[in-house]
Amino acid sequence: MKYYVGIDLGGTNIVAGVVDGDYKIIAKASTKTNCPRPEKEIAADMAKMAQQAVENAGLTFDDIEWIGIGTPGIANSSTGIIEYSNNLGFKDTPMVKYITEFIGRNDTPVYIENDANAAAYGEYVAGAAKGAKNAVCITLGTGVGGGIIIDGKIYAGSNFAGAEIGHTVVEVDGAQCSCGRKGCFEAYSSATGLIRMSKEAMAEHPDSLMNKMAEEKGKVTARTSFDCMRAGDIYAKAVVDKYIKYLAAGITNTINIFQPDILCIGGGVCNEGDPLLLPMKELVAKEVYTRNSPKNTKIVIAELGNDAGIIGAAFLGRANG
Amino acid sequence: MKYYVGIDLGGTNIVAGVVDGDYKIIAKASTKTNCPRPEKEIAADMAKMAQQAVENAGLTFDDIEWIGIGTPGIANSSTGIIEYSNNLGFKDTPMVKYITEFIGRNDTPVYIENDANAAAYGEYVAGAAKGAKNAVCITLGTGVGGGIIIDGKIYAGSNFAGAEIGHTVVEVDGAQCSCGRKGCFEAYSSATGLIRMSKEAMAEHPDSLMNKMAEEKGKVTARTSFDCMRAGDIYAKAVVDKYIKYLAAGITNTINIFQPDILCIGGGVCNEGDPLLLPMKELVAKEVYTRNSPKNTKIVIAELGNDAGIIGAAFLGRANG
Repeated sequence: MKYYVGIDLGGTNIVAGVVDGDYKIIAKASTKTNCPRPEKEIAADMAKMAQQAVENAGLTFDDIEWIGIGTPGIANSSTGIIEYSNNLGFKDTPMVKYITEFIGRNDTPVYIENDANAAAYGEYVAGAAKGAKNAVCITLGTGVGGGIIIDGKIYAGSNFAGAEIGHTVVEVDGAQCSCGRKGCFEAYSSATGLIRMSKEAMAEHPDSLMNKMAEEKGKVTARTSFDCMRAGDIYAKAVVDKYIKYLAAGITNTINIFQPDILCIGGGVCNEGDPLLLPMKELVAKEVYTRNSPKNTKIVIAELGNDAGIIGAAFLGRANG
Repeated sequence: MKYYVGIDLGGTNIVAGVVDGDYKIIAKASTKTNCPRPEKEIAADMAKMAQQAVENAGLTFDDIEWIGIGTPGIANSSTGIIEYSNNLGFKDTPMVKYITEFIGRNDTPVYIENDANAAAYGEYVAGAAKGAKNAVCITLGTGVGGGIIIDGKIYAGSNFAGAEIGHTVVEVDGAQCSCGRKGCFEAYSSATGLIRMSKEAMAEHPDSLMNKMAEEKGKVTARTSFDCMRAGDIYAKAVVDKYIKYLAAGITNTINIFQPDILCIGGGVCNEGDPLLLPMKELVAKEVYTRNSPKNTKIVIAELGNDAGIIGAAFLGRANG
């Protein structure tokens, strides 16, 4: 059997995994990223985690086909350079070169890719988007991430900075987004956007159950509005309805552009399940350009969770042809 | 030299052209589409125009490599069937089969593609998007059309109905769009959208020069606001500013998703030139996710006009394979 190493480089953790040919993670190793610190130190720890994961799997690098890395920021998969990463403080970081040096095996290829793209590729090879020709993955987390698979390959754009579906404006002059624009999909459909809308409703309706619950829990979370809606609070329901409306708008936009076989959504907010998904799908079905066509995009929930990034990274050797 | 036939099937006209290997149209023939009428009659006229164009070029079908057709609606380039076209009243129309029969040459391949995609491909092979790896073309006409080229091939989506960039919402609950949604890019950035915004401003400001000019000309056009802005009317300038703001929003959205080498815009509104383009480009440069990157998408004006559809159709034999 062949084995592959995937490294998920995050702002908080470095996680390396050994993945087998059936897309199963058979061993892992992780450490803190400890940003900010020199890029070479981070690379050294990434290599160490890869080595440890291989050891944990009871293997040696002779068993490893290649190493793939998912990283925040702009990862040039052709040159192996992370051109820019705000989170990590990287600028033109020659990550593939570093890892090759630290691992010390010139015959083990090393690949890099943006983390959201790698995670989308993970869902494509082994998760909810399996079997698609074209797929788009949207992750509803602190931000709204996007990953695009076209004809079985990652589409990252000509400058490797594409797929920023979260940073498409769905409301001109709307809510402020972290990217500097106003009214981005992310500003409404991220967990952060949901919390903002909850707080706005709470300020407007001090008698909302959301205020009581937030006081009890000591904070407003992305679950506050959903929990209070289930408890019968009409203001919470209005927040959820608004959240779903914007989410459906952004998803419909994405389908109208890509008409993928599969649109996969993931991230913590998806744990809300049917109360989120059913009305969202209903709105999309009503609005999508091909609503009268029998061949519509299947909307599915991501299956791999945090493992998507490792599994996707582990198969980067196939991701770009 | 090799020659290629491109047929641009429109709601009003059928135009066939013979194109040489240098992407030049060397002969044309056209007739009215005369909708609605039976699909087979339209196909017969398309074949007739192809034959006449070949004759006008002083050639025979022995000189023709293949025939390509650009059509409104959902054109399945794999099966050769136009699955749906609202404009033409087509449903599951086996156009490739018809044309092959009417031309009577089984050894001349026939290809079909959506007309906006074919026009984008024309700009890609011979026009403003030449040399790009990835390109997106946006046409500002009665509607807002989109065409996507990825890695040198047309991207039409898994169900051949994609690239509807005009039908992405840029303002939730915004202006009514012909597609049934509210707030689409098309509802603001088409010539129709510009006329609507001009009329709204005219109703609000009866003393605007736009009212006087519209009365003189007997109608409001997409030029009214630009002409009156140049004549110093502040209300007209506000309309143009609003138009440019939404156009920049939609273009920035498209770049954030695709990060193409080239984004090509065409259509009548582009004839306004610098007063439209310069402020639009400035807004995009300010807003785009990669605004601090040296590798940004080049925004260019389409070069081929109505010929893009014929030239693109003529090279469809290369577009998907």
